[in-house]
Amino acid sequence: MTAYHAAWAWLGGDDLVAHVTIVEEGGAIIEVTTEGPTPHDAVRLEGVVLPGLVNAHSHAFHRALRHRTHGDGGDFWRWRETMLRVAGRLDPDNLAELATAVFAGMALTGITTVAEFHYVHHDVDGDLYRDPNAMGHALVDAAHQAGIRIVLVDTCYLRGGFDAPLEGVPRRFGDGDAERWAERVDLLRRFYREDPMVRIGTAAHSVRTVPPEALQTVVGYAASNGMPFHIHLSEQTAENEAALAATGRSPTQLLHEAGGLGPGTAVVHATHLEPADVARLGHAGVNVVACPTTEADLGDGLGPFIELATAGATLAVGTDQQVSMDLFAEARGIEHHDRLRLRRRGVHSPAALAAAATVGGARAVGTMQRGIAVGAPCDLAVVDPGAPTLAGWSPSDGIAGIVFGGSAYAVTDVVVAGRRIVEAGAHHRFDDVVARIDRAVRAVLA
Amino acid sequence: MTAYHAAWAWLGGDDLVAHVTIVEEGGAIIEVTTEGPTPHDAVRLEGVVLPGLVNAHSHAFHRALRHRTHGDGGDFWRWRETMLRVAGRLDPDNLAELATAVFAGMALTGITTVAEFHYVHHDVDGDLYRDPNAMGHALVDAAHQAGIRIVLVDTCYLRGGFDAPLEGVPRRFGDGDAERWAERVDLLRRFYREDPMVRIGTAAHSVRTVPPEALQTVVGYAASNGMPFHIHLSEQTAENEAALAATGRSPTQLLHEAGGLGPGTAVVHATHLEPADVARLGHAGVNVVACPTTEADLGDGLGPFIELATAGATLAVGTDQQVSMDLFAEARGIEHHDRLRLRRRGVHSPAALAAAATVGGARAVGTMQRGIAVGAPCDLAVVDPGAPTLAGWSPSDGIAGIVFGGSAYAVTDVVVAGRRIVEAGAHHRFDDVVARIDRAVRAVLA
Repeated sequence: MTAYHAAWAWLGGDDLVAHVTIVEEGGAIIEVTTEGPTPHDAVRLEGVVLPGLVNAHSHAFHRALRHRTHGDGGDFWRWRETMLRVAGRLDPDNLAELATAVFAGMALTGITTVAEFHYVHHDVDGDLYRDPNAMGHALVDAAHQAGIRIVLVDTCYLRGGFDAPLEGVPRRFGDGDAERWAERVDLLRRFYREDPMVRIGTAAHSVRTVPPEALQTVVGYAASNGMPFHIHLSEQTAENEAALAATGRSPTQLLHEAGGLGPGTAVVHATHLEPADVARLGHAGVNVVACPTTEADLGDGLGPFIELATAGATLAVGTDQQVSMDLFAEARGIEHHDRLRLRRRGVHSPAALAAAATVGGARAVGTMQRGIAVGAPCDLAVVDPGAPTLAGWSPSDGIAGIVFGGSAYAVTDVVVAGRRIVEAGAHHRFDDVVARIDRAVRAVLA
Repeated sequence: MTAYHAAWAWLGGDDLVAHVTIVEEGGAIIEVTTEGPTPHDAVRLEGVVLPGLVNAHSHAFHRALRHRTHGDGGDFWRWRETMLRVAGRLDPDNLAELATAVFAGMALTGITTVAEFHYVHHDVDGDLYRDPNAMGHALVDAAHQAGIRIVLVDTCYLRGGFDAPLEGVPRRFGDGDAERWAERVDLLRRFYREDPMVRIGTAAHSVRTVPPEALQTVVGYAASNGMPFHIHLSEQTAENEAALAATGRSPTQLLHEAGGLGPGTAVVHATHLEPADVARLGHAGVNVVACPTTEADLGDGLGPFIELATAGATLAVGTDQQVSMDLFAEARGIEHHDRLRLRRRGVHSPAALAAAATVGGARAVGTMQRGIAVGAPCDLAVVDPGAPTLAGWSPSDGIAGIVFGGSAYAVTDVVVAGRRIVEAGAHHRFDDVVARIDRAVRAVLA
């Protein structure tokens, strides 16, 4: 049992609350008090305490692409060629090294849960590793090492496009059919059933790469096992056009017909939607994972985030391709993209944006994180109000300053399952996180 | 005479050059060598050396607004009400305190020249201070204290709108007519004539707030004295609509008719332009100051930056309302905004974006900065390649990493006029820059 005393804490809403005592036992919060004496042995968190941040969409290995896709014109094909080159070089060892470093880096930024959208399953010829989940285990081991929770979103990826087989590096992504995908995932699900730091999730890469019947199988498997289901949806107009040409339907319609819309579903990006798609997604109560820095970097466009939220969807955020590693930037990116699109300020409340990076993300990835509340996992992130970007702001001014001025650089302490894994900006296990990322990236590129 | 040895330097183009010796005398660069021995007494700059960054559009006092305009709906009017409240509380003393802290903060981020777009000229009743330039001198003194160069862009601001007088706080902005504005500016111009760290520039706040004849007077005064001329242009569609309704012309047309288009002109924002405006601005070879973080925060929209550059304009960047203080973010913001608008990657070359933050800005503000070259002022900013955002990248990979992964946090050393004003992340005069900003903001808001 540990008691933490937060100088300030965000308990929801636009305000911050002073002097909050958070008591944990067995990794869960058993008491939250805002009055009365602080236990004399309480661990003092001298900053603004937030629920641990949830990174609802990550491809850890994309970290190796950062800054390497802008040369030679830097178009989408340059990006894709680099991505496939890196994907072609991964193996369980170098992936574990890279992901350990990347996840430790995430911990330093306040992230306590990562949803890893994992599709590099097989060897370079597309054949099974001896352990068919060698790559998935590498990712889970990495999260264990880094001290954060992982939702391994194991991704079904069966074809190169509506009318194209998997060829070249993408053969690594494919299980042949959805049944074999499910069998492999079932091994993971059973193996990690008792591990409170791991959850196995499901995904279809996209409606482009998973045919309708297989999509139905994935969705059915997720539903019958109570697992979250993720999918890239309408990130670029080309996907919409291809779906329409091949099937006469929008990606959202295809997903709907496969039974894939519901509160356990997270659609990633959801950039280019017709009003009917927005209404359908909102009515189903899906989660929408916005990744604004990626959507800017890849030139995807500005998604209809406020329309989705108003229609009933829950917003979450992800670092996606790791072009940045800062969920504060992703959360305010939702607001900035909507402001740029709608040409007005004040679209989302600051509290709604803070929720996207915390409890909204938790809903999207199917974990128990419910904020700083009794019964929730004791996952916390502490922001230093003395950070340069916050000079002149006070916690008594409310959560807006954290949302618009917080940053990865302002996080000092991180608690996962009641244990402090980052203290005063230092990771409890690795004192060389940046050097580790550097080495791991070079090892993959070598 | 000081010799600096740069581990790496950006001399233009997409590549970085190793082992560059930069020799300065009297504040100017007199030699740049990439071969031969390094002088044994050279000061070693262990990072990537860039020309000093130029902040081509700043309102220092807006720093006090940061994080205070998002509550209560956070719409544009909330922003404007807060801005005017702050503007109403400024006096020469608290402005000097605030600007000193803000400019010292800029120095820490690699900025060596700030163009301060200055319009709070008079006392709270709109009357002259005993020294009619008390507020302008406060800003120049602040830059001196902070050790950076200032281009004081003294701004003419005569009415509240096309058909509205100045009322309330904005009376502080007005000189009554353009002749009196010019007389006041002339005092500044003559006073600072011999100061190599100061340049006096001119501005009209906008075509909305300066009538055509007065605009002509301002433009003529700037031209006859070889001074830069700045103006906010078509930041929001409302300005275009108001201009069209009142005059039948676009803001760009009005500026053209006043003789205000030329290579000495910098138009700020230029967000909403018709193709004819773009062609006219490009043909005239104007400078365009993009302020992407402000344009996102205020919901202005996505400007046609690549079209302007292609038509012949030179791009620069500014921190504007100080919602962020990071010219690396502003420079890549040009690319991100164009990607989001055009839905494709690789719009500007990394070198063009680096130029916008350095030599492009210098052209826009009329200083001599021409990059790391003989005859240019010895203004330098050093980026640490070991920064977290750059892990996995090497200087030999080229400037793209600096543009897309550089940040205010990665700047270690700054040289202005040959003297080091920031060393290992510390300001040479102030060891408490963040606390100073904090205090100064609170003093203004108190």
